[in-house]
Amino acid sequence: MTPYKDLSREELLQEKESLEKQFAEVKAKGLKLDMSRGKPSAAQLDLAMGMMDVLNSSTDLKCREGVDCRNYGVLDGIREAKELLADMTEVSPDNIIIYGNSSLNIMYDTVARSMTHGVMGSTPWCKLDKVKFLCPVPGYDRHFKITEHFGIEMVNIPMHADGPDMDMVEEYVNNDPAVKGIWCVPKYSNPQGITYSDETVRRFARLKPAAEDFRIYWDNAYGIHHLYEDKQDNLVEILMECKKEGRPDMVYKFCSTSKVSFPGSGVAAIGASKANLEDIKKQMKIQTIGHDKLNQLRHVRFFGDIHGMVLHMRKHADILRPKFETVLDGLKTELGGLEIGSWIEPRGGYFISFDALPGCAKAIVAKAKEAGLVMTDAGATFPYGKDPLDSNIRIAPSYPTPEELKVATEIFVLSVKLVSIDKILLEK
Amino acid sequence: MTPYKDLSREELLQEKESLEKQFAEVKAKGLKLDMSRGKPSAAQLDLAMGMMDVLNSSTDLKCREGVDCRNYGVLDGIREAKELLADMTEVSPDNIIIYGNSSLNIMYDTVARSMTHGVMGSTPWCKLDKVKFLCPVPGYDRHFKITEHFGIEMVNIPMHADGPDMDMVEEYVNNDPAVKGIWCVPKYSNPQGITYSDETVRRFARLKPAAEDFRIYWDNAYGIHHLYEDKQDNLVEILMECKKEGRPDMVYKFCSTSKVSFPGSGVAAIGASKANLEDIKKQMKIQTIGHDKLNQLRHVRFFGDIHGMVLHMRKHADILRPKFETVLDGLKTELGGLEIGSWIEPRGGYFISFDALPGCAKAIVAKAKEAGLVMTDAGATFPYGKDPLDSNIRIAPSYPTPEELKVATEIFVLSVKLVSIDKILLEK
Repeated sequence: MTPYKDLSREELLQEKESLEKQFAEVKAKGLKLDMSRGKPSAAQLDLAMGMMDVLNSSTDLKCREGVDCRNYGVLDGIREAKELLADMTEVSPDNIIIYGNSSLNIMYDTVARSMTHGVMGSTPWCKLDKVKFLCPVPGYDRHFKITEHFGIEMVNIPMHADGPDMDMVEEYVNNDPAVKGIWCVPKYSNPQGITYSDETVRRFARLKPAAEDFRIYWDNAYGIHHLYEDKQDNLVEILMECKKEGRPDMVYKFCSTSKVSFPGSGVAAIGASKANLEDIKKQMKIQTIGHDKLNQLRHVRFFGDIHGMVLHMRKHADILRPKFETVLDGLKTELGGLEIGSWIEPRGGYFISFDALPGCAKAIVAKAKEAGLVMTDAGATFPYGKDPLDSNIRIAPSYPTPEELKVATEIFVLSVKLVSIDKILLEK
Repeated sequence: MTPYKDLSREELLQEKESLEKQFAEVKAKGLKLDMSRGKPSAAQLDLAMGMMDVLNSSTDLKCREGVDCRNYGVLDGIREAKELLADMTEVSPDNIIIYGNSSLNIMYDTVARSMTHGVMGSTPWCKLDKVKFLCPVPGYDRHFKITEHFGIEMVNIPMHADGPDMDMVEEYVNNDPAVKGIWCVPKYSNPQGITYSDETVRRFARLKPAAEDFRIYWDNAYGIHHLYEDKQDNLVEILMECKKEGRPDMVYKFCSTSKVSFPGSGVAAIGASKANLEDIKKQMKIQTIGHDKLNQLRHVRFFGDIHGMVLHMRKHADILRPKFETVLDGLKTELGGLEIGSWIEPRGGYFISFDALPGCAKAIVAKAKEAGLVMTDAGATFPYGKDPLDSNIRIAPSYPTPEELKVATEIFVLSVKLVSIDKILLEK
């Protein structure tokens, strides 16, 4: 196809007229479609319904260590849950604490604790004039909201095909003692689906932070969330890399079963060095008597072990894969060669990231909404909701049905084309 | 019986010899007994085993409003859970937020949020030179640990038969702007089992705090935890009282089903004015996508409504009542008239509070431990773990079996007698 920019004014106007007709038709259907959040579909949730049966009134509710999981006790998680989630995030069970239902909540609490109590004896961040976090962009909006909530200054770090711009990361982390953290989704990243390369992970491990309380916030949300059995990204395990480099305390790993079992009713965990975990537990024992051990037991009894979990994730992949392919096919067929946007084909995770012509993202999302398609707000993938180029749009294909996705993609590409033509026309 | 203090030196020494013989006998049994924590017994947990069956793989897991409880969404709790816990804590469902499994965690988060973000727009407490909390004593050790953790200065307020010393409370709250809160367990208090009188609650509601961000931390942990059907304490509902006095924002109410269903796997909530709840939700939506809705649904489907919950609590009472009576009978029979200790007979809750002769509590707890009986650490019921009189001991009769309790009480009274005799002998 001829790139739009190479079409004449007349050709563009003609194309616009035809697109507007198509748009009017789909708009007239009065659809309500949602590609805004990384929410599993009902079919995916059905996969874990067996979990509702593994504990019943005649089940032995003692965990392996003999603790009655119905009662108080066990601050940091029952042993078998530690083993399962440790395997999931590839650390030793001794390097993990099991929390409640939300890894986001763990990350929030981690920042909150650092604000009021510092990190392993450092000055509480609330006593400092300035605290900064590095934010690879585009990234996860809820990460950025946490740091914004605590008044932490966020610094955009561009993402490349192999992860964040490590020259820039090293420059900041190794020289600026105000830099206390970096938000990472290292595998099948939100929203681009990029997995950090081996070299990127090793460069993370080799950081020499100016601040002793600098931590890498390694949110491995999609660690086992592959789309393919044969094409899988591999991520080097960072805690071990940091250990090898003599800085085992430099990373916090976060994970959860939110998109494995049930979002909101899953189990979340933090993986870190023993020194970090001891520091965390000092606060944790004040905050709670313990998390929901019955739900921990429910997960362990349902999945059995990490192999059971991996097999379960293949069923998720079977549902998600055709959805991703529907969107990607639509983008390729309709936008390929037009040079009005680019995207990456992810091998896992929950998102497709689309980069429109600069200045077009907000308008595209607004246009799609006209026809009943809700997308993630343009800008949401950047700190403070501000995409400097107004270019990035996050596409979440998981929740709609395949049929809905087909129409949603149609609306999306129409919106991209219409907005892009207007932009090109203005510049002609 | 003759008070020990009226016995002669010889009589005391003779009594001591006989007691030491008894103590040696029970010690020789090598028992392991625990009256240290307010933990339900296995028999109590068995009462809620039906809850393990109410949700299964063929259950409709949508809540009344049509939300699929297996998926993300609903920040502040499903409607039917709000109704159940609102009834439990006697407020409107519009005045409640449902959290995770632990009311302690809500209290911690409430203080943590006030530290970093203030209360409804006030200065964050971490920016203030001094923050104080009033602590009715004896009280709940985990409350005091939270305020200690955040470096908040704690001020002891003596408990009377009708609640905290309200003259002192008024004096502090109405005049000192550094006083930001007071910890209250208003019904069947921990550890004394005291219920605040109507007048005490009304005096709370009539407080005119010097600090706009002063809040009453009303931990109604034992609101429906009666021991008797015919002898029940009544507590005036404080949110309404505060509303009547024109200060609806002055109180946070906390409750949970930890000692109704399963500790650690229950549901907790905060009740407060809408303005407070809006303030809380601003932070909550950053902290989490939502709490465990399946567990909320599980609770609602099991109890049905507040009447179902009340009936359920009667079964708890049937198990707890004889345990309390075993301890109270033991105290009365063995210590009555000796004037070496006093206690209150509670009508609900989880504890019996024992006041030994000044300077004896630590020694009594240590003595009991010699014979294999673990009690709550002496001093734990006071801020910083320091009982100025070294007198108060918390007895938790819920966990041991009735047979174990009989022996535990025997060990306890022997320890009280032996330590008291030593003390009286010293002073003779």
